[in-house]
Amino acid sequence: MSNLTVKKRINKLRETMVEEGISLYMITTMDFHMSEMTNGYFKTLKYMSGFTGSEGKMIITENNVHLWTDGRYAIQSVKELEGTDIHVHIYSDRSDELRNLSRFFILSGDKMFTDAIEKAPSKKVIVANNDYVIGCDGRTFSENLMQDIKESMHIAYDSGMVKIKTDLDLVGEVWEGRPKLPKGKIYRLSDDIAGVPAAEKIKKIRGSINLSSGNIGYVCSSLDDIAWLLNLRGNDIEGSPVFLSYLYMGSETKETYLFVDSTRFGYDVNEYLKELGVEVYKYDEFYEFLENVDVNFVAINPSKSNAAIIDTLENREDVELLEVDGLIENSKSIKNPVEIANTKRINKLDAVAMIKFMKWLKENVGKVEMTEISAADYLELLRKEQGCFELSFDTICGYGANGAIIHYTATDKSNAKIVLGNLLLVDSGGHYMGGTTDITRTFALGEISEEMKKHYTVILSGMLELGMAEFPMGVTSAELDIYARAPIWKHGIDYDHGTGHGIGYMLNVHEGPQIINYKRSMSSKIMLPGMITSNEPGMYIESQYGIRHENDMLCVEKKNGLLGFEYMTLVPFDIDAIDVKYLNEAQRKALNDYHKNVYEKISPSLSEEEKDWLKRVTQPL
Amino acid sequence: MSNLTVKKRINKLRETMVEEGISLYMITTMDFHMSEMTNGYFKTLKYMSGFTGSEGKMIITENNVHLWTDGRYAIQSVKELEGTDIHVHIYSDRSDELRNLSRFFILSGDKMFTDAIEKAPSKKVIVANNDYVIGCDGRTFSENLMQDIKESMHIAYDSGMVKIKTDLDLVGEVWEGRPKLPKGKIYRLSDDIAGVPAAEKIKKIRGSINLSSGNIGYVCSSLDDIAWLLNLRGNDIEGSPVFLSYLYMGSETKETYLFVDSTRFGYDVNEYLKELGVEVYKYDEFYEFLENVDVNFVAINPSKSNAAIIDTLENREDVELLEVDGLIENSKSIKNPVEIANTKRINKLDAVAMIKFMKWLKENVGKVEMTEISAADYLELLRKEQGCFELSFDTICGYGANGAIIHYTATDKSNAKIVLGNLLLVDSGGHYMGGTTDITRTFALGEISEEMKKHYTVILSGMLELGMAEFPMGVTSAELDIYARAPIWKHGIDYDHGTGHGIGYMLNVHEGPQIINYKRSMSSKIMLPGMITSNEPGMYIESQYGIRHENDMLCVEKKNGLLGFEYMTLVPFDIDAIDVKYLNEAQRKALNDYHKNVYEKISPSLSEEEKDWLKRVTQPL
Repeated sequence: MSNLTVKKRINKLRETMVEEGISLYMITTMDFHMSEMTNGYFKTLKYMSGFTGSEGKMIITENNVHLWTDGRYAIQSVKELEGTDIHVHIYSDRSDELRNLSRFFILSGDKMFTDAIEKAPSKKVIVANNDYVIGCDGRTFSENLMQDIKESMHIAYDSGMVKIKTDLDLVGEVWEGRPKLPKGKIYRLSDDIAGVPAAEKIKKIRGSINLSSGNIGYVCSSLDDIAWLLNLRGNDIEGSPVFLSYLYMGSETKETYLFVDSTRFGYDVNEYLKELGVEVYKYDEFYEFLENVDVNFVAINPSKSNAAIIDTLENREDVELLEVDGLIENSKSIKNPVEIANTKRINKLDAVAMIKFMKWLKENVGKVEMTEISAADYLELLRKEQGCFELSFDTICGYGANGAIIHYTATDKSNAKIVLGNLLLVDSGGHYMGGTTDITRTFALGEISEEMKKHYTVILSGMLELGMAEFPMGVTSAELDIYARAPIWKHGIDYDHGTGHGIGYMLNVHEGPQIINYKRSMSSKIMLPGMITSNEPGMYIESQYGIRHENDMLCVEKKNGLLGFEYMTLVPFDIDAIDVKYLNEAQRKALNDYHKNVYEKISPSLSEEEKDWLKRVTQPL
Repeated sequence: MSNLTVKKRINKLRETMVEEGISLYMITTMDFHMSEMTNGYFKTLKYMSGFTGSEGKMIITENNVHLWTDGRYAIQSVKELEGTDIHVHIYSDRSDELRNLSRFFILSGDKMFTDAIEKAPSKKVIVANNDYVIGCDGRTFSENLMQDIKESMHIAYDSGMVKIKTDLDLVGEVWEGRPKLPKGKIYRLSDDIAGVPAAEKIKKIRGSINLSSGNIGYVCSSLDDIAWLLNLRGNDIEGSPVFLSYLYMGSETKETYLFVDSTRFGYDVNEYLKELGVEVYKYDEFYEFLENVDVNFVAINPSKSNAAIIDTLENREDVELLEVDGLIENSKSIKNPVEIANTKRINKLDAVAMIKFMKWLKENVGKVEMTEISAADYLELLRKEQGCFELSFDTICGYGANGAIIHYTATDKSNAKIVLGNLLLVDSGGHYMGGTTDITRTFALGEISEEMKKHYTVILSGMLELGMAEFPMGVTSAELDIYARAPIWKHGIDYDHGTGHGIGYMLNVHEGPQIINYKRSMSSKIMLPGMITSNEPGMYIESQYGIRHENDMLCVEKKNGLLGFEYMTLVPFDIDAIDVKYLNEAQRKALNDYHKNVYEKISPSLSEEEKDWLKRVTQPL
C-alpha cells in the first residue's frame, strides 16, 4: 500500500472524527467475537495503515498516528509502515503491553490530554473544563482491553473529564470497497460426527446457568463455542470452520436465540434449529435485543466478550452481570468418545499424507528442484487426497534460517530453495470431517552437523518427557510445561513460545482453556481427561535453523489412577537427525515404542514400497 | 475445658449480643496482623469453644453455635467439642471453604435471615423490614475473608438488609483473666546481623510508593514485615521473634509512624528510631490515626490486612485505596549478602546439633529408653549448645504411626516410645543470631522393610531432583513443584502438603511470597536469586509411618545464566534407609556430592569420634 494512500485514508477518517466531535480514534485488529484470526470485513487496521500483522492497536488524533504491536511483528511492522507518519511501538509481553497502554494516550501527543493525565494522580477531582471524547467501535475491543484503557487513564476517566464513545465505526464510513460480510453456507454435523446431540449440550449448559432460580440469561459471542454448542459449522475465517453469530439463552423463557444471517443456512438447518427450540434473528439485531430482553441477571465471560456487549448490558439499570468463566469452552475442551474416536481415525489419514510427504522429501531433495512454497503445496495436495477439506492454518514450511522464524509464512520474496545440508521445519495441519490436526516435523536434508543432531535430540527429549508425564488430577497445564522444558533447560536451551495448546474439533486449531506454558500460570487451567493438546517444544538459532517437534496428545486416565497422555499424531521423527547419546533410557524406550506404534497403525494404509521405507525409518534405536 | 464452662461462656456472650443488638457474632482464630501463629491474648475462639486448632471460624446466634475448621483438625475438633452444642464443619480446601461460607449464614438457622438469602437471587431489591446485624471484631478478619462473607450474603448485604458491625470485641468483654498483651523486650539488630541498615530499607520502600507525586501513604500491619524493615526483633509469638505493631509511611510528610508499646523498647531503641525519623505512637492509637491522617491515596495489601483497617480507610471520603502486592514481603524474601553469609554460618551450627543428635539416636535406640518428647528435648538442648536462642517451631518428632500425622506434636498422651524396627520423623529448626533453620530427617531405627527403603529413597529422589533444577528466571514456585513430584508420582505416591516455603531471617519460619506447591498456581510468585526456601517432599501411610526429607535451599544464579539451588542444610540422610536402585545416576551422584560436602563443611567442628562416624555415614553409595 502506498504511503499516499495511507495518508489519504487517515485524513478522510479525521474528517469524520471532526464531524462526530472525536479527538482520538482507536482501532484494533479484532473482530466482534475476539477471534484469533478474522474475516476480511474486520481488517480495519490493515485498511487504515497497511500493516498486515494479526495483532495491533492504533490511535489517530488530529496530528498523530501511533500503532502498537507485539515482538513477532517488530521487523515487519517497521517495514510495512516505512514512509508513513505512523509511530510504531513494540511490546514484548503482556505486562509490557499494559505499561505501554499507560503511555498510549500520553504518547498521543495531545497536550491537553497529557496534562490531565499527568495531573490526575495528585488531585482527586479534575475540573472538566473541556470534554475530551475518545471514539471507537466497541465491538472490536475486548472488555478486558477496554478496562485496561480506562484504568490507564485513571482519574481522568473516572472524573468524567474524558469520555469514550464506543458506538462508532468510522473506518466503515470511509472504507470504499470494504469486503462484504461472509456469505458461505452454514451446515449441520450429523450426530455420528458430533457425538453429542446439540439438544443435550444445550440442556447441560442451561443446567449450569439455571442453578439459581432467578431470571438469568447467558450471552455467548465466541464463534467456536456457538458452532460447538449447535453442532453447526461454517467457513467465515480462513482455517476456522465457524460462522458469524451471537447466542443468547434465557432461563425463564427456555428459549435459545441465535443471531445469524439465516439466508446462509444449508440443507435442513432451519428445521433443525426449530426442533432444537432455537429462535433465529438477524446478526445485527443482537445489540438491540440486549437492550430490551426481559432479564435480571446476565451470565457472561468478560474476557471473551467485546466491550460493546458489556456496555449495552451495564447501561441497563435492571440488569446485573454475573461473571462466568468459559462455560461452553470448558465443556468443549473435553472431547466426547465419538470426537476422540474420529480424531484418532483422521489422525491416521493425516499421518499417511505426512509420511508420503516425508518419503518424497527425503528421497528427492538435492535431486529435484523444490521450494518452501512448492513443498507446502505438495503436502496440501497429499492431505486433500486423504479427505482434508481445509488446512487448519497456513503451513509453516521454513528451510534453514527461515525455520528459525517462529511465525514464518513463505512469501514469493522469502521463498527459499530446499537443498541438502540443512534442516526443514514443517508445521501444518488439516480439518477433516472428524477432527483437526496440528503437527510439526523437522527433517534433516543430507548431511547435517553434530550440533544440529544434538539440538534435534535434546528438543525431542523434552517432547518425550511431557508425553510420558504421569500426574494426579489438579496439575495445571502451565505446571506441566516443566516436564518438557526441564531436560531442555539443562542444556541451556529455551524457546519463546508455549509448549502446548488445546486443539478444536473441526474448529480453531488453537483452543482453550488449557495452555501448556509456564509463563501463563495466572490464567492456567488444570489438565483433564479428554482434552486434546499439542506438545511442541522447539529451538531457534537466528539466521541458521529452527527445530520443533509437535505431537497432538489426548489426556487419559492411566491404570494407576494418574493422568497421562496418549499420542494422536502417528508420524516418525527423522532418525537421521537423532543422536541417541542425548536420550536417557526411558526416553529412548519411549521413542522406540512410539515408532513401533506408528508402523503398526499406519503401514496397512501404505503401498509395499512405502511400507518398506516406513519400516526402515521407524527401526529401533 | 468442661462443657459447662463452654455453655456458660457462650450464654454470657449472648447477653452482650442482646445489649449490642447483635443477632449473630463471628469469631476467628486470627490476631490483628493476620499472623500464622498468635499470642495468647488473641485466642478468643479457643476461649469460647475449647477448640485448640490454629485455624477456625465460629458463629454464635441466639440458638446455635457453628464452628468451621480445615481437614487437619477433623478428628481433633470433634474430640475437643464433644458434648458441647457446637456444630462442627470441616472444609477440605479453599474452594470448599468458600462453598461453606455461602452456607455459613444459612446454616446459622436464623429463619428470617435464611429467607432473605434464599429469596435474594430472584429479586433485585429486598424490602428491609427488619435490620439484621452481624457483629465481630473486624481486626481479627482478613479483608479477603470479610469480602467473601459479604459476597456469600449476596443481595442481602448489598441491599442493606443485613449490616455488619466490625468494631466490637464481645469476647473481650466477657473474658475473665484474659492474658495481657505481651510485654517482652524489643531489641535492635546490629548492621552486621541485618546486613542492610533500616534507613536504606525505608528509603527503598519509600521510593517504590513515591513514584507518583501525589499525597500517598502506605500501611503495613504484618509483624514480620515491620520487624524486617526496622531491623528490630521481639518475642511476642512463640517461635516468631516479632512484636505487635503497625506501621505507616507518608510520602508527603516524609515520616514513618510506628504504633507500638514503647515501654518495651530495649537498650538504644528509642534513640535509634528517632535517628531513623520514625515517630512512635501507642499500639492502640493506630485506628484513630487512620481516621485523621492527611492523605489522599493509601497503598495497602488487602490480602495481608485486617478488615477493620480497610473499613476505617474506606469510610473516609477523601481517601482512595491503592492495592499493592507484598511491597515489603518481596524485598524481605530476597536475602542480602550478609543475611546469606550468616544463614550459611548458623546452618553449620544447626548441622552440628543435628549430627550429634543423629549419632546419639542411631547408637542408643534399643539400648536406652527414649520417647518422642525426650528425644525432642535432647535435640533442643543440642541446638541451644550451638547458640540457638529459640526453636523456630514446636519440634515434630513422630515415631512410626505418629510420623504419618503431618502436623503432629507429641502430647503426654500420644508420646510414643522410640524403639527398633520403624522410622522416626523429626522436623525441627531454630532461630540463631544470624538466621533461622528448618530441617526434616527421617531415621531408620534397626532393621526396616524393603518397602520402607523404597519409599525413603523415592521421596529422596524427588528432593534431589528439585535441588538439581536449572531454570530461567520467570518460573513460578508452583511450577517448580513438578521437579520434586514427577519422580514420586511415577511410583503412584503423593503427599498432601506443599514442597517448599520461604524461610524468614530470624522471623517466621514460614514466609512468602514463594510457595512451592502446584496447587497454589494462582497465587504463585516467581523464584528469584537470594530466596531461601525449604524443599520437603514426603509420604505418609496412616497407622504405619511417615517419611519427609527437608533441606533449606538458596536460589542462586548458575554459571550458565540459569537459576538453581544451593543447599543450606548440611546434615546426612540416613544411608541405612536408602536403596540405590531407586535413584538414577544423576540423583545418586547428587546425593554423594551432598554427603561429601556435609563431611567437608561440618567435620572440622566435631570430635575425632564424631568425625569417624560422620565419615562412615556419608560414604559414597
